[in-house]
Amino acid sequence: MSGNMLLVAVMAVAVAGSVMAFSSVKMQAGAQNEDKMVAGHSTGIYRTTGDVLDPEHDSRQLSNAVVDPDKYLREFNYGHVSKLPDGTTLREFTIVADDKRVMEVSPGVSYNVWTFNGTVPGPTIRATEGDLVRIHFVNNGTLPHTMHFHSIHAAEMDGAFDQVAPGGRFIYEFTAEPFGLHLYHCHVQPLEEHIAHGLYGAYIVDPKGPRPPADEMVMMMNGYDTDFDTENNFYTVNGIPFYYMHHPIQIEKNQSVRVYLVNILEFDQINNFHLHGNLFHLYRTGTSLTPDEYADMVTMSQGERAILEFTYKYPGQYMFHAHKTEFAEKGWTGAFLVRE
Amino acid sequence: MSGNMLLVAVMAVAVAGSVMAFSSVKMQAGAQNEDKMVAGHSTGIYRTTGDVLDPEHDSRQLSNAVVDPDKYLREFNYGHVSKLPDGTTLREFTIVADDKRVMEVSPGVSYNVWTFNGTVPGPTIRATEGDLVRIHFVNNGTLPHTMHFHSIHAAEMDGAFDQVAPGGRFIYEFTAEPFGLHLYHCHVQPLEEHIAHGLYGAYIVDPKGPRPPADEMVMMMNGYDTDFDTENNFYTVNGIPFYYMHHPIQIEKNQSVRVYLVNILEFDQINNFHLHGNLFHLYRTGTSLTPDEYADMVTMSQGERAILEFTYKYPGQYMFHAHKTEFAEKGWTGAFLVRE
Amino acid sequence: MSGNMLLVAVMAVAVAGSVMAFSSVKMQAGAQNEDKMVAGHSTGIYRTTGDVLDPEHDSRQLSNAVVDPDKYLREFNYGHVSKLPDGTTLREFTIVADDKRVMEVSPGVSYNVWTFNGTVPGPTIRATEGDLVRIHFVNNGTLPHTMHFHSIHAAEMDGAFDQVAPGGRFIYEFTAEPFGLHLYHCHVQPLEEHIAHGLYGAYIVDPKGPRPPADEMVMMMNGYDTDFDTENNFYTVNGIPFYYMHHPIQIEKNQSVRVYLVNILEFDQINNFHLHGNLFHLYRTGTSLTPDEYADMVTMSQGERAILEFTYKYPGQYMFHAHKTEFAEKGWTGAFLVRE
Repeated sequence: MSGNMLLVAVMAVAVAGSVMAFSSVKMQAGAQNEDKMVAGHSTGIYRTTGDVLDPEHDSRQLSNAVVDPDKYLREFNYGHVSKLPDGTTLREFTIVADDKRVMEVSPGVSYNVWTFNGTVPGPTIRATEGDLVRIHFVNNGTLPHTMHFHSIHAAEMDGAFDQVAPGGRFIYEFTAEPFGLHLYHCHVQPLEEHIAHGLYGAYIVDPKGPRPPADEMVMMMNGYDTDFDTENNFYTVNGIPFYYMHHPIQIEKNQSVRVYLVNILEFDQINNFHLHGNLFHLYRTGTSLTPDEYADMVTMSQGERAILEFTYKYPGQYMFHAHKTEFAEKGWTGAFLVRE
Repeated sequence: MSGNMLLVAVMAVAVAGSVMAFSSVKMQAGAQNEDKMVAGHSTGIYRTTGDVLDPEHDSRQLSNAVVDPDKYLREFNYGHVSKLPDGTTLREFTIVADDKRVMEVSPGVSYNVWTFNGTVPGPTIRATEGDLVRIHFVNNGTLPHTMHFHSIHAAEMDGAFDQVAPGGRFIYEFTAEPFGLHLYHCHVQPLEEHIAHGLYGAYIVDPKGPRPPADEMVMMMNGYDTDFDTENNFYTVNGIPFYYMHHPIQIEKNQSVRVYLVNILEFDQINNFHLHGNLFHLYRTGTSLTPDEYADMVTMSQGERAILEFTYKYPGQYMFHAHKTEFAEKGWTGAFLVRE
Repeated sequence: MSGNMLLVAVMAVAVAGSVMAFSSVKMQAGAQNEDKMVAGHSTGIYRTTGDVLDPEHDSRQLSNAVVDPDKYLREFNYGHVSKLPDGTTLREFTIVADDKRVMEVSPGVSYNVWTFNGTVPGPTIRATEGDLVRIHFVNNGTLPHTMHFHSIHAAEMDGAFDQVAPGGRFIYEFTAEPFGLHLYHCHVQPLEEHIAHGLYGAYIVDPKGPRPPADEMVMMMNGYDTDFDTENNFYTVNGIPFYYMHHPIQIEKNQSVRVYLVNILEFDQINNFHLHGNLFHLYRTGTSLTPDEYADMVTMSQGERAILEFTYKYPGQYMFHAHKTEFAEKGWTGAFLVRE
């Protein structure tokens, strides 16, 4: 143990057939240091040291981060594209679920994340209305998992009743409809646990006549309950607390920006988004090409999502964050840097 | 005491002029069994054993259920109909409030429910815009009660300031307006207690030009705080936890379904509804014939309501549930069975 | 100490460079009297006696109230008006921040409020779209403070990154846009503390073509955490719990009423508004002249706001209140008196 760091390693092997839960917390000297015993998700008893908030750290130095927020922000996965005999576009994706990784969610805080393709959030899947989406799903974890999409599809493609066993595979296939901003997540019980650990991602269906050109990006609002007390210790947009405060998102003056905003936050009843110095056109669920509102705030419960469109006309740095103060102060805070 | 059942009967006679509160909980062996002492609504001290979640039980075998969800779902009460001299349609209803019943809210869990016409939720009252609604209200309980309608009416018909004493009667009379989905509930203080115990129901006002034909149903989202700690132990749609998971609601492929969805959940700040494998057209408060949104989720606080319209084009079984995971896992979960 | 009153004075000088927090609570005999030790915002330890709810008191007899709700309700500040050479209207305001006052938030309850121009909420600032707004801001407090406006403005006018030190001054200047109902609040960290103590106010931007004539009023929904446990003890509209229940807001039958409704409630995830005996046309954020909904309820998270328009056609007294029962029963309850 060196310098002003205190290392507390906590680990428990579940007693009732569940997976190992693992959490390692390095604390800054002077940070909150209240020991407590908590009942973990998988029925083990853990010892932890409370919340760690460390916005001073450079989160780009994380060696084993749950995601690279710079990459995630503007990465849209269109799949392997081919044409069916009737002219329909087929988009194929391979998604691998895992529940054995221990990764850093914040400087000094490791957590047993459950992942789609190795990151939290999972990859953004994108198609155009009318395409055939085919997902080759592989469960590489130790628990059953599924992919449940919010959108129109047949009952047997719903990922709610038909679990995929560890080592199992399943092909989800459906027509991309309706256009809008959707999401996918694991739907295995206890749902709370499968979502809280990280099994989710965004699913965008573009309208056939595309939206106007814009600087497009995805923002997934989530949280981490690292001491297993069914309250979040960290709140983020795109996986790492405070990331975009240290590394502001660069955008251009007078250029249209389009944010695909999804809320998957577990435990809390709502989450929200406030844009500084500007207002956005709001498209709830993204299912209309006419905006629902013109606002600087939107509030959503878990599973809701919206498209935001805005243009800055003055350069400089502008915050965006949850206007639930607690969430903002525990990591759900970022900034845009508007360049001339 | 037989088999693997443990019976804990708890009872308290209030010390300060309030009614008897009564709760009887049968626990499955192995269920959560944490004894705790709680201060009840009526200032007595109770002993209880925590939450009981028993979705395996067949809730059709309840001998003394708070409601029959199969019957409640599609039962609309149009009242006793007559014509006034000026041609106006008069609809008369008799509603009796009671607060002395002990009924089953879930297999093995009895609770002192307060009822309108003997059920939780109370009957769905339905009229057409412009009708005269006359309600013969009888308070057959031990506490003052009222009926407060969310809708347009005169101050003296509001059920907020003028309480009806035990044994008393009152006639609420108003023109049905505006068209939309409304609700009624007791408005006596402490409001928390009168709502939490079950005094509420839906109130539908149809537009003069009727909505298109559809398979119509009512869904009332509520909860039960059976250990009196101001947190709900059970969450339901239509009165019985998990009921429609055991007994899916049968609907037809390619037929329009219209859900009148009301949130009366006490204690929690919001409630929500997620539809699987489909999206619905959403009419907030039902006061417009043009939908507000096209979505698979809607979030509402207590007293809010919305009409949802949707059509399934693929057969099979589809869940619908709160996307607040805790609510779903404590009973607010059901399923549609879409038949060919 | 006289009669049936019990005086508990609690005071703490913060240990880590923060300000003095001060709270004085007089309790009615028989009121809740549960002693508890709590960790205050500024890291001191306080002793308090729980919530005091006293709707029987005449809140007009407060000698040192945080605000006069009768005056606040319909007071719009248009600033000192002049014309710029290009014909633009310039509106100048002077706003002084303070954090040293101890004022009454309810009969018998004093609290260390932090104020803009000496009241909670601060003054309502009003301009017309396209005006130049210039605010002469003076920090007369002991901590850094700022004014952050929700609206369009340059980054350097945002009040988020550039704190104004104690004794400092700053001129905020921006074009009033877009038309709508906005708000301002201090944005210094910890944000929770600066908002919870009272640093906020409404900001109205009228459209160039004015809205139709109406009886206009402002309603700011807030709360007070007088025992520093990050839960509100009192909820209000316009600063004093239950004020408009004792002193109903007088309006005219058949006259249009327009409420500018803002939610700045800290700690709770949402707040809401229910109108009795009527429905209102709802304009979310006030940024459209076409209503979004026709409803008797609206739910908003902190920082959200809406304009409500309604007309009563029957005389009498009608409640309006939060439909989160806890908030209503802790003070967020009022009444309209509709006169012939």
